[in-house]
Amino acid sequence: MEFDTIAAISTPSGEGAIAIVRLSGDEAIAIADKVFKAPGQKKLSTVPSHTIHYGHLIEPSTGRTAEEVMVSLMKGPKTFTREDVVEINCHGGITAVNRVLQIVLNEGARLAEPGEFTKRAFLNGRIDLSQAEAVMDLIRAKTDKAMNVALNQVEGRLSKLIGQLRQAILETLAHVEVNIDYPEYDDVEEMTHRVLLQKSQFVRKEIDRLLRTAEQGKILREGLSTVIIGRPNVGKSSLLNALVQENKAIVTDIPGTTRDVIEEYVNVRGVPLRLVDTAGIRETEDIVERIGVERSRKVLKEADLILLVLNYSDELTPEDEKLFEAVAGMDVIVIVNKTDLEPKINMKRVKELAANSRLVTTSLLEEEGIDELEEAIAGLFFSGAVGAQDMTYVSNSRHIALLNQANRSISDAISGVESGVPIDIVQIDLTRTWELLGEIIGESVHESLIDQLFSQFCLGK
Amino acid sequence: MEFDTIAAISTPSGEGAIAIVRLSGDEAIAIADKVFKAPGQKKLSTVPSHTIHYGHLIEPSTGRTAEEVMVSLMKGPKTFTREDVVEINCHGGITAVNRVLQIVLNEGARLAEPGEFTKRAFLNGRIDLSQAEAVMDLIRAKTDKAMNVALNQVEGRLSKLIGQLRQAILETLAHVEVNIDYPEYDDVEEMTHRVLLQKSQFVRKEIDRLLRTAEQGKILREGLSTVIIGRPNVGKSSLLNALVQENKAIVTDIPGTTRDVIEEYVNVRGVPLRLVDTAGIRETEDIVERIGVERSRKVLKEADLILLVLNYSDELTPEDEKLFEAVAGMDVIVIVNKTDLEPKINMKRVKELAANSRLVTTSLLEEEGIDELEEAIAGLFFSGAVGAQDMTYVSNSRHIALLNQANRSISDAISGVESGVPIDIVQIDLTRTWELLGEIIGESVHESLIDQLFSQFCLGK
Repeated sequence: MEFDTIAAISTPSGEGAIAIVRLSGDEAIAIADKVFKAPGQKKLSTVPSHTIHYGHLIEPSTGRTAEEVMVSLMKGPKTFTREDVVEINCHGGITAVNRVLQIVLNEGARLAEPGEFTKRAFLNGRIDLSQAEAVMDLIRAKTDKAMNVALNQVEGRLSKLIGQLRQAILETLAHVEVNIDYPEYDDVEEMTHRVLLQKSQFVRKEIDRLLRTAEQGKILREGLSTVIIGRPNVGKSSLLNALVQENKAIVTDIPGTTRDVIEEYVNVRGVPLRLVDTAGIRETEDIVERIGVERSRKVLKEADLILLVLNYSDELTPEDEKLFEAVAGMDVIVIVNKTDLEPKINMKRVKELAANSRLVTTSLLEEEGIDELEEAIAGLFFSGAVGAQDMTYVSNSRHIALLNQANRSISDAISGVESGVPIDIVQIDLTRTWELLGEIIGESVHESLIDQLFSQFCLGK
Repeated sequence: MEFDTIAAISTPSGEGAIAIVRLSGDEAIAIADKVFKAPGQKKLSTVPSHTIHYGHLIEPSTGRTAEEVMVSLMKGPKTFTREDVVEINCHGGITAVNRVLQIVLNEGARLAEPGEFTKRAFLNGRIDLSQAEAVMDLIRAKTDKAMNVALNQVEGRLSKLIGQLRQAILETLAHVEVNIDYPEYDDVEEMTHRVLLQKSQFVRKEIDRLLRTAEQGKILREGLSTVIIGRPNVGKSSLLNALVQENKAIVTDIPGTTRDVIEEYVNVRGVPLRLVDTAGIRETEDIVERIGVERSRKVLKEADLILLVLNYSDELTPEDEKLFEAVAGMDVIVIVNKTDLEPKINMKRVKELAANSRLVTTSLLEEEGIDELEEAIAGLFFSGAVGAQDMTYVSNSRHIALLNQANRSISDAISGVESGVPIDIVQIDLTRTWELLGEIIGESVHESLIDQLFSQFCLGK
C-alpha cells in the first residue's frame, strides 16, 4: 500500500539523554536529506540501509544549525512499518525534540496519529491485528509476567493458534462441501456428521482452553483493581507502604487529567495490583466514613480484590461488621494487623465474618505476615505458576468477547449436528465461527474498528 | 583512557514507543553479543560500525526471549564517548526497558552514574568541559533561544573564544619572557609595558563583553522566576491561563519530590518564565493573606519578576498598596485588568505607586492587552533581539563566576602595569587569568569538581 510520510516523537516526553523523532513513508529519506547535513556532504539517499550517520539538522529557511543528531536509516520492507524509516536521535529535552519534529513537519511530513506506525505495520501486512494490539500491551506491561504474555502475542503465538483453528474449520467446510457434491455415496451423510462433530468439538475445546486463560490473562494485563479498607488506625497506610516498599510501586498519571487521578501499581509475585484511591488512604484515614458516600461504594463495587484490615489489639466494632457487609460476595482477604500488641479481638467472630475469605494475621510494624499475605493474594487468582512463559494467554477484552461469541456459534453448530438439523444450517454456524476468529487477527474487520483500536496507542508508536 | 563498560536507560522514563539502553566501553559489543540473537546467527563483533540490527534479546540463564529489539552498533572513536557504543532500542514501557537494562547489567556492564557518558566524552578528549556542560543545558532548554545558546556552546563557540583569549595571554607572557631575557635592548621596558597594556586591555574588553551577555544568558538558561500577585478576583488565574494558553506551558515535576513542587514554564517571546507557586494560584486566591507568611515572602524575595495585578473596576484598597510595598525595589510589571468593566480605579494613584515600573492595562476576558504585556516582559530584560542565534552567551553560573575572577585578575595586571609594579608581579596576575579561563573549558580543573559537575546530569547521558 502507499501512504504519505508520517513523523512523530517516539520517546516518552520529558528530559532524557536521547530523544527520537521517527519518520515513515516513501518520502522519509528525501525529507531527512533536505534537513540533514553530514560531514563530507554525504546524502542519505546514497547510503546503505540500516546504517547510522552523524551530522547536524539544518533549518532550511535560515540555513542555521538546529541540532546535533544521529540519523538511522532503514529502507523498507525490512522495517517496523515495512516502509522506509528514518529515526533522528537528538539530545533529549522537550525543546530540542520538538524543534526536530517541527523541521521535518515543515519539509512535508505529516504528524502521525497515535498508533499510526503500528497501524501501518498491520496494514502493510507485517503483523496481524492481535500482534499489533500486543505491541501496546508490551509498552503498558506492569510486570515481567504481563510482558511475557504480551511478547508471546507480539511474536504471533495467539495468531498461530487462531490460524490453526480457522484452518480446521475451513477443512471441515471443504469436506462437507465435497460430500454434498457427491451424495451418491452410501455412507456420506453419516461420515459427514461424524467429521463435523469431531472437528467442531476439537475447535470448541481449544476455544474453551483459551477462554480459561482469559481471567488470568486480563489480570496480568490490566492489574487487579485493589481497595484497602478498614477503620482509622488499623494500619491501612502501613499495609500500603509495606506492599509498595517490598515491590517497587509504579505510579502512573492517567493521561488527560492533571494529577488528580493517580494509579499505583504494585507487583505482588507477578500479579500487578492496581491500588485504587491510594491518595485517599495516604492523606486521610476517613475511608470508613466515606463508605456511605456514593463514590466509595462505586470504587468498592468495581474492585477485583478487597483487603479488609482489622485491629488485633482492639475489639470488633459495629463499623468493622458493616465493612464485612459492604464487601459481601466479593474477593476479600481479611488482614488482622497489630499482632505485636495485646490481643483483644474476638478471633472466633472474625472467622465467622470472614467465612470463606482468606484470613491472614500480620504485624506490619514488625514486618511479620507479609509473605503470607502476598501468598494469599497470588493464590486467590492463580493456582500454580503465574504467567508461565510458554503459555498463551488471552488478555485483551476484545479477543475475549470474540472468543465467547465464537464459542456460542461453534456450540450451535455442534448441537445442530447432534439434533440432526440440515447441513447447510450447520455450515452457517461454522462459517460464522471462522469469521469471528478471523476478527481477532484482523481479517474481515471493519475499518472504523481498526481506526478506533489504534487511536488508543501512544504517539510515535 | 581505559574504563569499564557502563550502561543506562537513555530515554526519559515513562510510556513511549521506543526506549533505549545505551552501553559504552571496551566490553560493550561483547556484552551485547552474549544476549543478542539475530536471524542467521549474525554476531555483532563481526558487523561494520554504525549499522543497525534487528533481533531478540535473550535471557542467558533461561535461554528465553526477553524482548524484540533493534541494536545500533558504533565503534570508537567515532562515537559520543569515543568508546565502543551499543544502543539497544526496545519497545517503550517501564517493564520492557528495565528488563533490557537488567540483562546487560547481569552480563557485566555497570550501571552508569548520571552524566557518565558525557563525562567520558570529556575525559576521552572529544569535548571540553564547557561543551559538556552545555550538553545538559541543551536537554534542559526551555525555549528555542535557550537551546540556541546551548547549541552554540556544545559546538565549541565559547571554547573557541576562551581559547583565543588564553592564546593572547600566552603570547603576551612569552613576549615578556623574551624581553626579560634580552634586557640589553634600549627600549625593552617601554615596549614590554606597551604590549602588556594593549593585550591585557584587549583580554579585559572581551571578558567584559562576555560578562555583559551573562544576565541574559542566565535568564535564557534558567528562566525568569516569576510570581503573580494580587488580591482575590483581580484575574491572577486568568493571567496565568492567558500566558499558558498563548505560549504552551511546560510543566516539570521536580525530580525527587512527589508532585509537591511543580514548575511551570511559559515561553514569552523567547524568554522562559518560570512561574513559581502556580499551584497555589490555581487552587486558591489567598496569596494576599499569605503575603504575611514567611514562605511567601521568601518566594517574593527570590523572584526575578513580579506581575502585580490590580482590578480596573474596583477602587484601590490598602491591600493593593501593601502589595506595592512588598515588592518595592524589584522588577515589577503592574497589570490593571478588567478594562472591559466600569472604571473605578484611581489611575493617577496607580501610576504614582508604579513609579518607574512598567504599567499595562488588560482585559484578559476579552483577550486585550496581552501583546503589550508580553512586550513589557521581554523588553524588561532584553533590548533588541533576544538571544540572537549567532551570539555567544555565557549562561552558566560556574562560567560567570570564573569570568568575574578572571576580570579582577586581568584588571590587577592592568593597574599593575599602569602603576609600574615589577613585571614578575604582573606575570603572576596574567598567569592566574590564563588559569581561570582554563577552568571554564576544563583545563587544570580538580577531579572532585568534575565529579560534582557531572553528577548533576540526568541518567543515561
